[in-house]
Amino acid sequence: MAPVTLGQDQAQVNALAKVTGRALYAGDLKLPGLLHGKVLRSPYPHARIVRVNTRAALALPGVRAVLTGADCPDALWGVHHKERRILARDVVRFAGEEVAAVAATSEEIARDALDLIEIEYEELPPLLTPEAALASGAPGIHPGRDNVSHRIQFEYGDVDAGFAGAAVVHEATYTTHAQYPGYLEPMATVAQLDAEGRLQVWASTQSVFQARARLASALQMPASRIRVIQATTGGGFGGKLIEDANTLVCALLALKAGGPVRLVNNRLEDFLAACSSVPERITLKMGLSAEGLIVAKDVRIVADCGAYSGLSAEVMHVSAMRSDNMHRNANVRSHATLVYTHTPPHGAFRGFGGTQMQFALNSHLDVLAGMLGMDPLVVHQRNAIAAGETSLHGWHIGSTGLQDCLLQATEAMGWHGKRPGLPARGARRRGVGLACAMHVSGNRTIGNWDGSTVVLKFSEDGRVLIQSGECDMGQGAQTMLSQVVAHELLLPISHVRVAPPDTDVSPYAIGSLASRVTMSAGNAAILAARQARAQMIELAARHWRCEPGQVLFEPGLLRHAQDASRRMSWPELLRLQVWRPGGQELQVSATWDPKTQMHDTALRGNIAPGYSFAAQVVEVEVDTETGRVQVLDSFVSDDCGKAFNPLAIHGQSHGATVQAFGWALYEQLQLEEGCLMNGNFADYTMATAEAVPMLRGGLVESHEPNGPHGAKGASETAILPGAAAIANAVFHATGVRITDLPITPEKVLAGLAALSKSGASHA
Amino acid sequence: MAPVTLGQDQAQVNALAKVTGRALYAGDLKLPGLLHGKVLRSPYPHARIVRVNTRAALALPGVRAVLTGADCPDALWGVHHKERRILARDVVRFAGEEVAAVAATSEEIARDALDLIEIEYEELPPLLTPEAALASGAPGIHPGRDNVSHRIQFEYGDVDAGFAGAAVVHEATYTTHAQYPGYLEPMATVAQLDAEGRLQVWASTQSVFQARARLASALQMPASRIRVIQATTGGGFGGKLIEDANTLVCALLALKAGGPVRLVNNRLEDFLAACSSVPERITLKMGLSAEGLIVAKDVRIVADCGAYSGLSAEVMHVSAMRSDNMHRNANVRSHATLVYTHTPPHGAFRGFGGTQMQFALNSHLDVLAGMLGMDPLVVHQRNAIAAGETSLHGWHIGSTGLQDCLLQATEAMGWHGKRPGLPARGARRRGVGLACAMHVSGNRTIGNWDGSTVVLKFSEDGRVLIQSGECDMGQGAQTMLSQVVAHELLLPISHVRVAPPDTDVSPYAIGSLASRVTMSAGNAAILAARQARAQMIELAARHWRCEPGQVLFEPGLLRHAQDASRRMSWPELLRLQVWRPGGQELQVSATWDPKTQMHDTALRGNIAPGYSFAAQVVEVEVDTETGRVQVLDSFVSDDCGKAFNPLAIHGQSHGATVQAFGWALYEQLQLEEGCLMNGNFADYTMATAEAVPMLRGGLVESHEPNGPHGAKGASETAILPGAAAIANAVFHATGVRITDLPITPEKVLAGLAALSKSGASHA
Repeated sequence: MAPVTLGQDQAQVNALAKVTGRALYAGDLKLPGLLHGKVLRSPYPHARIVRVNTRAALALPGVRAVLTGADCPDALWGVHHKERRILARDVVRFAGEEVAAVAATSEEIARDALDLIEIEYEELPPLLTPEAALASGAPGIHPGRDNVSHRIQFEYGDVDAGFAGAAVVHEATYTTHAQYPGYLEPMATVAQLDAEGRLQVWASTQSVFQARARLASALQMPASRIRVIQATTGGGFGGKLIEDANTLVCALLALKAGGPVRLVNNRLEDFLAACSSVPERITLKMGLSAEGLIVAKDVRIVADCGAYSGLSAEVMHVSAMRSDNMHRNANVRSHATLVYTHTPPHGAFRGFGGTQMQFALNSHLDVLAGMLGMDPLVVHQRNAIAAGETSLHGWHIGSTGLQDCLLQATEAMGWHGKRPGLPARGARRRGVGLACAMHVSGNRTIGNWDGSTVVLKFSEDGRVLIQSGECDMGQGAQTMLSQVVAHELLLPISHVRVAPPDTDVSPYAIGSLASRVTMSAGNAAILAARQARAQMIELAARHWRCEPGQVLFEPGLLRHAQDASRRMSWPELLRLQVWRPGGQELQVSATWDPKTQMHDTALRGNIAPGYSFAAQVVEVEVDTETGRVQVLDSFVSDDCGKAFNPLAIHGQSHGATVQAFGWALYEQLQLEEGCLMNGNFADYTMATAEAVPMLRGGLVESHEPNGPHGAKGASETAILPGAAAIANAVFHATGVRITDLPITPEKVLAGLAALSKSGASHA
Repeated sequence: MAPVTLGQDQAQVNALAKVTGRALYAGDLKLPGLLHGKVLRSPYPHARIVRVNTRAALALPGVRAVLTGADCPDALWGVHHKERRILARDVVRFAGEEVAAVAATSEEIARDALDLIEIEYEELPPLLTPEAALASGAPGIHPGRDNVSHRIQFEYGDVDAGFAGAAVVHEATYTTHAQYPGYLEPMATVAQLDAEGRLQVWASTQSVFQARARLASALQMPASRIRVIQATTGGGFGGKLIEDANTLVCALLALKAGGPVRLVNNRLEDFLAACSSVPERITLKMGLSAEGLIVAKDVRIVADCGAYSGLSAEVMHVSAMRSDNMHRNANVRSHATLVYTHTPPHGAFRGFGGTQMQFALNSHLDVLAGMLGMDPLVVHQRNAIAAGETSLHGWHIGSTGLQDCLLQATEAMGWHGKRPGLPARGARRRGVGLACAMHVSGNRTIGNWDGSTVVLKFSEDGRVLIQSGECDMGQGAQTMLSQVVAHELLLPISHVRVAPPDTDVSPYAIGSLASRVTMSAGNAAILAARQARAQMIELAARHWRCEPGQVLFEPGLLRHAQDASRRMSWPELLRLQVWRPGGQELQVSATWDPKTQMHDTALRGNIAPGYSFAAQVVEVEVDTETGRVQVLDSFVSDDCGKAFNPLAIHGQSHGATVQAFGWALYEQLQLEEGCLMNGNFADYTMATAEAVPMLRGGLVESHEPNGPHGAKGASETAILPGAAAIANAVFHATGVRITDLPITPEKVLAGLAALSKSGASHA
């Protein structure tokens, strides 16, 4: 077997376990005496809990625990604000809120027990929109405060002067909606008390240490009395990061029932329980110079966090300022308001607020380019920040492939040929649209650290176990770590393996968010591997009584540069590592923490060690008779710094592209009076294979100086431009500008009708 | 909760889990689809396997795998010699040898399937004694070699001159028998293939890393494809160290059945499967000067390893030379022969060969003292090696409490009052007997290393997780590690916990043998704790911008010596450890390896960092009408260097004392034609509460310079003097010298009859 070469396609190291069904998802875990949990949810968006009677449920044979808000710790949990109880007490704030939970010997009995729980509600008028919640005199959704959960405001440069000097100014309002994460595996937890009475939790999660911290806080237990192990995780997309109640309810049931409990959402439960992305109404006013340079930007955002703020404040923060860093514009004003409503909570989602703003920004630049009579490609090219520059918010752009991405994507899609030649004038009209985006690779926001630690543990047979607390939720963290370590140590991929994250075993880790794992854990893995390599060389030198410089480190062996008789295989060397006076196991640990800064109160600070960019061109066909938009072709160009595993990056980019298509065209959570009406995959229509063309994409290797071998976060950027690229293509095809997602046939037809009524003709 | 003080009684940290039934022994593990294993054993001590037919067994519904020797890897396994196959092929060498194994959906089906396996044997004449095996012309039990498994020979000084100058010389032959380990929990293993196809094994074991190495060797798999986790272990006494086939058979069944398999011996199976202690025939010739000093010793040992050598060679090695180091005698000749027979294999057992020789040596010194008209106490006192001296074999005696042990035990038992005053002349005669012993604390025999590594992992709530690969099999390793770390860090015992040994997680460790864990892992724990303490002080100093010397480390907090406003609790500090630029989890690793030497070919070398000593006095009553010997009182004085946990040491010493009583008086494996006849606790009579007086003991703290806080191995020494002390007491009571263990009523009566026939009167 050949040593790993970075840059070659590599099947995911856990693929075999997954395709053979051996991989253990939390729902697959069977423990003796395993109980099944079920959650009763509020049917009302806002109500007072008048009376609770659990007697009949408790009396049902097979029921082992019935919990209501009264059984929960008084402590409140939450990310930004501590405001949520594991099970609601006194009042419910959204339809779907967890009100009671049951553990029983079978799932069927647990379900039946839910029916026996009597809860008398007094319905109260709900505040279902930010407008209603912000209306003067609206009652506070949370006690003792108004309905503004969070506010962000900043101003740089002279915005008004910028507008005054602009050649063109445009203002519009864009409406984005909430997207359900749509991972294959719904939330799942198994919890039990171990022999020492500690709480042991297997969870489908993006961060075991953050899950532990959340459990410790919500259950009021010391963190060391809790062990969280990542079960195989079938997708996260931000939804399994830190906001889900599934793990908390399951743990509480296990504590009360005294036995192991399994709580696996079915799809409807998952729709009700998961935080969908934050819906934002973005009013954007921008001015461009005659050369197409952005000279002023005014941003107003009203975002809806739902009943509990979760990570929505952080998401809105990203919407408000991240895209500023793509451009050289010095004059920006931003005002963002996060509002509580009596709707299901929103939060982290792939792209983390970037998606919403990039839809608005890229749509807006398309309009402004049109106003200037310029190719939007040129506008993007002229405004793009360059490597070596520092952005408005103090971000040091160490590398950017944005210009290359723009060129690659437009060339691949024949942009210059299609842009002016279109549109055809028939019933089916084709158009191409362009958008671009940026994302972080890491983010110094939690505390003042964004590091990662990797431990390498060497076996006497010469194989390496990698311990990291960073979670693989399908994105390929285990494969990346395996590749990096194997490459550094000249090993085949099969000679390294990654232990699953486990708070008792793994070194501390923040988890899989902000596209930080390749950057942080990848760098730590390199440091650890080089440390191990140096120790092995030193040991061989000591054994051969020579200088370390005379020892050659080659695949599977070390040898003396001058003396052919002196050579040791890895197993020989590793046994020697222990079995000598003063010996010890070869186990190394290395931490990498980027030299980044937390942003200050003015939202300035270089928060990430690297920034990723992407550009996308799509071609659509719009059926002007039905309003249906079909994506005919798509090319995403992904600036990943350096592609360790092109296969994996393409896979993730394609997935992101499809998720963007779904958000732009098909998916929509239907709430009626605050209640979700389409919590299933028949009615919540994610893009299927039929809706998606053969996806295309390209990689741009901009070589990030802070990255491991130049790599940075890949593919999360690829979800950001899709919606705007489609909206721009629809406009190119039809002249209809859709600013309100999703782009439904009804909206397209309405736009066409309005166009024809106004007599406007599409040039 | 107060910080731990070493020297105070401490309940075992895992006691609660054990007494509440929560502790998971391997037999308690339930896995989905768990299969039950059963082993078919040879009914003959020696036979050729002519034909094997497993068809009917395989056809039984519920049977998932049937294995015979043909299904086993060709590789042979074993410690000293690789000579054993997991399941016998072609030939069986002892009655009880593993011949076939079954995995089935229930234990009952597995048992029924055994009945359906047809094996046709051709019985062959067995060699059941060393004499028969050594007889000229005896066929080789193993192909291509004679029946001497191992031979040890050495000579120091001038033995013949020593005898020529001696005032008294005595020669006698002592016969010792095999003792079954008699742990509460029989051998138990659960094995399965994990999601990656690796072999995962939960075992009742004294060493996870040696278990892994044995599995890798026997199954011909890379060690890194195997994970061994220690299940809660209910006693080992050497029997769960490295020689048992239970783990191997279970793993092979799991590999073949493709599902998890549980193999738990019932008591009869365990009697058949476990290595009992090595029976030795020891011929001792010693000469003493008129002052009672040993001037010459000649030792001849014939030891029986049974059909496979296992660790018997190492055991015999200890018998041959360890006790030489107790005394100053310079003239020693030793010749020891280990012989194969067609009997069940012998091996490691608490005391590891010391028990056999100390019985002979202490009996012999009692006789010689009598020949000189001296008190044996005086003989022991005059010959005892002192601290600072180097023994015949090059052992540096850093500390010895032997003189104190002798004084303490004889004083506690009223030795001087009882010794001359006895015996009474009635039917029930009382006598007191004295014996002493030494043992190692660690042993540089495996490779050239005797180190241990301890990893400390700190939680954000200020609690500490201790990782060590050294196993607690009931002796208290987890409690010792908890005490040492908590003491060093000024924590209450509840703020530290020990993770169970796990080859994927724990640092490399040799395991629980040679009374090495307190010495090696205790020292490593101190190093690790001090390293952590220094890091915490350094971090606080950096935070406060002061010198480390100004930081005071106090229970639960650090504070500035001069500035009362500067203080940080552990949780504050530990969060700071991560959540700062460049931060990292506080996790430290320290290895301690003693400065000892492997012995050379002349058996010289200071193999252990410390040596423990013990003395014991017993008082017995002999019923001269029935021959029954009853122990009336016993006092063991245990030189443990420093007693961290007197409660635990007394517990272990008392247990050792009772096990010695059992060996001396009650237990005996009854073989008829090589077949075990009493493999159960009704017929194999271990000492019950009725047979044992209220045990007494004392601790001697000799402060070992190499030991952690002066501690060294405790209580294994306490099994060594018991048999001789009883034999000497019986002689004191009756004049009957029993040299052939156990001391049964029949032998006592025969001795009394011989005495009365010879007319000898007992002074």
